[in-house]
Amino acid sequence: MTENTRLKQQMHFIVEIDKLKQVLRQTYTTSKIRRENSCEHSWHIAMMAIIFQEYARDTEINLFRTIKMLLIHDIVEIDTGDTFLYDQQVRKNQHQRENKAAERIFSILPLDQKEHFQSLWNEFEECQTSTAKFANALDRLQPIINNYFTDGKAWRKNNVTRHQIETGNIAIANGAPQLWLYAGDLIKKAVKQGILKE
Amino acid sequence: MTENTRLKQQMHFIVEIDKLKQVLRQTYTTSKIRRENSCEHSWHIAMMAIIFQEYARDTEINLFRTIKMLLIHDIVEIDTGDTFLYDQQVRKNQHQRENKAAERIFSILPLDQKEHFQSLWNEFEECQTSTAKFANALDRLQPIINNYFTDGKAWRKNNVTRHQIETGNIAIANGAPQLWLYAGDLIKKAVKQGILKE
Repeated sequence: MTENTRLKQQMHFIVEIDKLKQVLRQTYTTSKIRRENSCEHSWHIAMMAIIFQEYARDTEINLFRTIKMLLIHDIVEIDTGDTFLYDQQVRKNQHQRENKAAERIFSILPLDQKEHFQSLWNEFEECQTSTAKFANALDRLQPIINNYFTDGKAWRKNNVTRHQIETGNIAIANGAPQLWLYAGDLIKKAVKQGILKE
Repeated sequence: MTENTRLKQQMHFIVEIDKLKQVLRQTYTTSKIRRENSCEHSWHIAMMAIIFQEYARDTEINLFRTIKMLLIHDIVEIDTGDTFLYDQQVRKNQHQRENKAAERIFSILPLDQKEHFQSLWNEFEECQTSTAKFANALDRLQPIINNYFTDGKAWRKNNVTRHQIETGNIAIANGAPQLWLYAGDLIKKAVKQGILKE
């Protein structure tokens, strides 16, 4: 492979991933006027990783790797779209569809970089290492924060209940117990304020 | 400061920076249907840092620090808005306005984190270290790529010329010479295709 081919592949990838800016999530931005997209969500949780490292269950996590995982974890959604956490129907084939998307999109890169991205994404998905557990905790916490600060807009629209949030987000407790306590407070307040169903 | 106060400050910051999702830039996403915002731009260039590290003029750069710089470098725009590179009028007080914004926004954080962010942002702005030079190169390269792949939409709308791009983006040559050659090819092609004024 010539050097020029390598750069072409890398540029192709950079142009391809621009499409993540068009993948809409259920959660709203705090402006309340529109839903956020997966690119914005990825930036937001990468920022959360920098700020919240001290709350990781295992403070020996590799923060640099956490951030890389979070930046790339949703790229597969360019092909699959975002899957709403509480939509059990659509979640059924999710894993298979996302694997296929990862293979297509990461293969645009030169082999060494494809392998690096695949390894980051697999680690995030398998969620066995401390680093991946912390990354997954942040991925789950951010929509709770944004929902709370948009008067539960996406929760109300999708009839989400307190029970669904509490059982669907155990990943936060696993990766960052203190942030799970904080989320618990937000959830309680949301129910009290009538923006989340009991 | 109690532990709880610290977490409250950090959460306040995380909610505050959501506003970056509303700061529009001149450049379009490759969908061509809308302009991108500064949050999306920041994610995109952080991804470029991961992919393009090998093209840094000094390959000994601290990639982790580059990525943190790129993730936070536009947060000041929450207060100032995005300043278009080729708008000399608005750029006049830019530095002063951005300093004020950095002080306000980073001060939401606990002191140790405020200082870390201020140090990252200053290093990016001063653009003296190899790491900051590489970061600045990517910040300038991304809009050229997005403009080229949207038929020069923002260039045409704002009457940008080849001369303006070539003189305004020397930062790319300083931080990543090989990527500057690539940008030069895109610029030449853009002129040939009539999507950029000679």
